[in-house]
Amino acid sequence: MVVVLAGGVGAAKFIEGVVQVVPPASLTAIVNTGDDFTLHGLTISPDLDIVTCTLADLIDRQQGWGIAGDTTNCMEWLARLGGPSWFKLGDRDLAIHIRRTALLRDGHTLSQVADSFRQTFGVAVRILPMSDDPAPTHIFTSDGELHFEEYFVQRGAQPEVRGVRLHAAGLARPAPGVIAALASAEVVLVAPSNPIVSVGPILALPGVREALRATRAPVVAVSPIVGGAALKGPAAPLMHATGHEVSALGVARAYADILDGIVIDLVDAALAPAIEALGLRVAVTDTIMRGPVEKAHLATTALALALGGS
Amino acid sequence: MVVVLAGGVGAAKFIEGVVQVVPPASLTAIVNTGDDFTLHGLTISPDLDIVTCTLADLIDRQQGWGIAGDTTNCMEWLARLGGPSWFKLGDRDLAIHIRRTALLRDGHTLSQVADSFRQTFGVAVRILPMSDDPAPTHIFTSDGELHFEEYFVQRGAQPEVRGVRLHAAGLARPAPGVIAALASAEVVLVAPSNPIVSVGPILALPGVREALRATRAPVVAVSPIVGGAALKGPAAPLMHATGHEVSALGVARAYADILDGIVIDLVDAALAPAIEALGLRVAVTDTIMRGPVEKAHLATTALALALGGS
Repeated sequence: MVVVLAGGVGAAKFIEGVVQVVPPASLTAIVNTGDDFTLHGLTISPDLDIVTCTLADLIDRQQGWGIAGDTTNCMEWLARLGGPSWFKLGDRDLAIHIRRTALLRDGHTLSQVADSFRQTFGVAVRILPMSDDPAPTHIFTSDGELHFEEYFVQRGAQPEVRGVRLHAAGLARPAPGVIAALASAEVVLVAPSNPIVSVGPILALPGVREALRATRAPVVAVSPIVGGAALKGPAAPLMHATGHEVSALGVARAYADILDGIVIDLVDAALAPAIEALGLRVAVTDTIMRGPVEKAHLATTALALALGGS
Repeated sequence: MVVVLAGGVGAAKFIEGVVQVVPPASLTAIVNTGDDFTLHGLTISPDLDIVTCTLADLIDRQQGWGIAGDTTNCMEWLARLGGPSWFKLGDRDLAIHIRRTALLRDGHTLSQVADSFRQTFGVAVRILPMSDDPAPTHIFTSDGELHFEEYFVQRGAQPEVRGVRLHAAGLARPAPGVIAALASAEVVLVAPSNPIVSVGPILALPGVREALRATRAPVVAVSPIVGGAALKGPAAPLMHATGHEVSALGVARAYADILDGIVIDLVDAALAPAIEALGLRVAVTDTIMRGPVEKAHLATTALALALGGS
């Protein structure tokens, strides 16, 4: 059994690689829900949807999110009627949010909804939201305290970041199955996702870090920082503002207590000795997931590093 | 000032005629909300939307409801995700329901939402929901007690009708402006809508019948029953089950206490004496609203009957 700690686009692509080398049904993705928020009265779960729809091959590959070929007729009228329009929602995409909201209101849990949706879409990978409880990630910025999506999407990651508040570190509990999946895993992979706001919330949930420290499974991360910059998203300002070096070494340090190894990019090869000095094994390879071949190669590298000795 | 008591499709077409002969801004439509219901967690107001979108010339003229040229991508995915699919919702249409639901949840009243939407869509006619309170119309049938839309749309008006429950007759209050509009009207027109489930709920609200009896304005209806049958919808079984003759005479009797006159179709000319015997004035004309000319003619006939003497 392989468990992947997952954020959004980078994680979804990474999992596409993993399912090429291990049976999809043996894989569990534990997905960040710190980005979840309510808009138009609808519960939106960006990372869950990106992971589910990517694995279902429904995703808009150009954007990395949204449904391929989707229309935006509803959104255009929502804007016309004075609704917020900063978060783009396609018509098919909206069905997911409407249905999720209705099911949650009817008393279903987010885990149940996520499981139902991935089955509807024919995804064999088990998809677990990190928590069934609200656990929003807020960013303290020069514009005040903002939900992550307000900071990232609405304001284009422009405000200066001063800190991060992970409500996952509060009253939220890991979703049913999360701790058990970590305890019974043979390998745990940390996807190349934002360490602060994608993987950070999962690790902040009570018991998760402890389970990762305690598990006998090797834990291997893939650095989302390549050449001192994030491939996508606002990892750099968020790492910087929370006291982390914006580098593969910074990523390794952030995860040092839970990791056995880390995969870093060729351009960061020079950082390997410093990472090894933390007590971690390092694999150096091309981590840019241009297509299926690179995805499978990255997954193989991570699994090989995990299973190469522990 | 002209006030029209309105249901859905028939009323919307009739009001299109009225605005050809009186300034739209001098017209107030008081619209049935007994058909309102919640689906997918969204508040749907069929008659308000039909009236608003018809007057905005956005309506699908073929159907009489929905937005012309709308797509159904969201609906198809809602069905795929296990949501109810018996009530068709276009993508643009859904924006109206999503936005209304969000505004209601934010504390706006249905009146405020209806006014905002008609202004957005450039409708000069004042559109008042009959009530800001929930006032659903239920039908007692051979399949049990059903919401009107469940009876009419979901079950295709197939179950045998045994009775009608108008929650408008309970705790619902007329929306702000409804009683005042009736009190200050120069003419009140009752649109050719279903007397039981479209106009009935408006009349069932506390104070409305009294205001119509008390108003000095002439009150004139247009019969929705032509040749002993409804032009559209389930008026016949509903009138029958509630003890009304399914005829223009039955309509006149149902409204007798509030009416000064009624417009009936040429095919029902023979009923005129019996209606006149109720103390009502009668105009006999072609009431089928095929296009703008017939609509304007019907409106002119109703207004002339109202203003011809009172």
